[in-house]
Amino acid sequence: MKKWDIAVIPGDGIGREVVPAAVRVLNAAAELHGGIKFAYEEFPWSCDYYLQHGVMMPDNGLDILKGFDAIFLGAVGNPAVVPDHVSLWGLLIKIRREFEQSINVRPAKLLKGLASPLKHPGEFDFMVVRENSEGEYSEIGGTIHRGDDEVAIQSAVFTRKGTERAMEYAFRLAKQRSGRVTSATKSNGIIHSMPFWDKVFKEISGRHPEVETNSVHIDALAAFFVIRPHIFDVIVASNLFGDILTDIGAAIMGSIGVAPAANINLNGKFPSMFEPVHGSAPDIVGKGIANPIGQIWTAKMMLDHLGELDTGAAVLDAIERVLESGVKTPDLGGTSSTDEVTDAVIRVLREK
Amino acid sequence: MKKWDIAVIPGDGIGREVVPAAVRVLNAAAELHGGIKFAYEEFPWSCDYYLQHGVMMPDNGLDILKGFDAIFLGAVGNPAVVPDHVSLWGLLIKIRREFEQSINVRPAKLLKGLASPLKHPGEFDFMVVRENSEGEYSEIGGTIHRGDDEVAIQSAVFTRKGTERAMEYAFRLAKQRSGRVTSATKSNGIIHSMPFWDKVFKEISGRHPEVETNSVHIDALAAFFVIRPHIFDVIVASNLFGDILTDIGAAIMGSIGVAPAANINLNGKFPSMFEPVHGSAPDIVGKGIANPIGQIWTAKMMLDHLGELDTGAAVLDAIERVLESGVKTPDLGGTSSTDEVTDAVIRVLREK
Ligand SMILES: CC(C)[C@H](C(=O)O)[C@@H](O)C(=O)O
Ligand SMILES: CC(C)[C@H](C(=O)O)[C@@H](O)C(=O)O
Repeated sequence: MKKWDIAVIPGDGIGREVVPAAVRVLNAAAELHGGIKFAYEEFPWSCDYYLQHGVMMPDNGLDILKGFDAIFLGAVGNPAVVPDHVSLWGLLIKIRREFEQSINVRPAKLLKGLASPLKHPGEFDFMVVRENSEGEYSEIGGTIHRGDDEVAIQSAVFTRKGTERAMEYAFRLAKQRSGRVTSATKSNGIIHSMPFWDKVFKEISGRHPEVETNSVHIDALAAFFVIRPHIFDVIVASNLFGDILTDIGAAIMGSIGVAPAANINLNGKFPSMFEPVHGSAPDIVGKGIANPIGQIWTAKMMLDHLGELDTGAAVLDAIERVLESGVKTPDLGGTSSTDEVTDAVIRVLREK
Repeated sequence: MKKWDIAVIPGDGIGREVVPAAVRVLNAAAELHGGIKFAYEEFPWSCDYYLQHGVMMPDNGLDILKGFDAIFLGAVGNPAVVPDHVSLWGLLIKIRREFEQSINVRPAKLLKGLASPLKHPGEFDFMVVRENSEGEYSEIGGTIHRGDDEVAIQSAVFTRKGTERAMEYAFRLAKQRSGRVTSATKSNGIIHSMPFWDKVFKEISGRHPEVETNSVHIDALAAFFVIRPHIFDVIVASNLFGDILTDIGAAIMGSIGVAPAANINLNGKFPSMFEPVHGSAPDIVGKGIANPIGQIWTAKMMLDHLGELDTGAAVLDAIERVLESGVKTPDLGGTSSTDEVTDAVIRVLREK
């Protein structure tokens, strides 16, 4: 029997509500497919952990995580008690970088049973491939005082390797799909890093003549996500642009609460990490109404990554059936609780 | 009789179609209000000009413009013939910076007669105050080769003066409106410039205790523009974030073709510049179908800036009546031409 070792980090806020829910679904899915077993180890690393220990994870945290087949993460951050850049750079972004999870893959697709806030969403179904390790999110910068003025500088860093890696991934993905890649740029306003991005995109495009390509400025692209999302197939974007685009992608799906994500390590040296697009949502913690779909769909991405494609497909199918049946959390206009949605997904999985 | 001297720069692409249209409206509006007269001088600075002269505007271009009461600009850019960073930094961004047009004000409001692509847009009516002279759009950066890798660096520069100036403007504006300011940040991912931005925002907020404030990460904010745009009043954003947000603002209004903008010089040393949010749209040039509403609404912002508030209000009212009557260009689902829409606006103005 195949056994997968999963490191579970519920993290903060609703992460602690949706992760147990998604783990229940994973177990039901494993049961369904007698051939898989999950062994979980849970780590309490979070802002609470920080308040007790002064760090978001222990010094040997990465060593501990290294041995797992995958990391299943909820959400990190509770700005009321720990500044975001401390909590996020001490856990989420640290793992992304140290484990060379250089790609963040985020699908946007109108699931059956979901109502888009758009009047004419069309049958949109696209994937954002976000560069996940460099770009605008950089340690380089600082603030200086000069007389009564003060200047803050922040340097974005784009390497050819990092840029090519994200783009090559996008082209590979496009070949398994409709064969189109759109590059998110802003070379008209950001005149060093983005022309470089465009240059590399042109080169990589040249290596894949069978893939149709175009390049769209991030402002126009964000608008297109609202006006004509169905025209996109694969979008490749920098760290920041990918971040923004995928929240819009989540919004047009009906709720940020449904959007999944996968932080992929490509060189096989470290585990990949699976965490939904949404954050810790302190405002709804403890109410039992957090939408578990984002975390469950993220579990499906983890199953796919582990090669358990049938089980992954069964989970997504169950999600859609439950949504179609009207069992939804309040963010989707429903009245069901986190547990009720989760139970419904498990019930559908078992019925199969 | 008050006479206003206006420098007119149609620029590229549809700029040359919508600027003459909006000038016709300005003239009709001036006629309506016997007290105003416009004297226009037109400048052919554009990508075509560049192809002939090797520059986007003559060396003394800024000196020439300096004497005008305002600059009325269409659109700049034609990437098929001149790289965007050359055309835009040689004209549009050059004027913004050299004339210390430190604020870009962009309203988003569902006009009567416009259909939002959102199912439930609500009665949204907000203003984005975009920092317009610094931030992510910076000259600092470059590319180096190191072995088989290559690294591009781009530094964003935020000064306290520039940041405060944009924020103070936003707070002043909020006091004339519902009294709420939202700051667009991303201090969880961009850990030098954005925490600085947050710090300054907190300080300025402290100076205006009567204004309600909050701070939202750009990714979530972009999503909120799609889910609940009616909750916003004034949003203050960096150069890049303001750029992205205002294209989403344009999209939810029904078309990027309707959104207006004002590049405001605050110290009175140089003219302000009025240009719509949309670009030169090479794909629809020459078809006579460019939407003139963005440029006409921009003319209304120029009138307001010149203190001609009644005339400005009359123009906006005429725009709304025309849209309500169903006279619209194809981007809004109509069948009318640029000229037909313009004629209709003028007819309504004259009827008053
Ligand atoms: C053309 C481009 C440089 C410009 C900008 O990003 O400022 C445009 O998108 C705008 O919003 O005015
Ligand atoms: C929390 C934040 C640092 C993070 C990001 O911007 O990467 C989040 O928004 C995401 O998209 O995973």
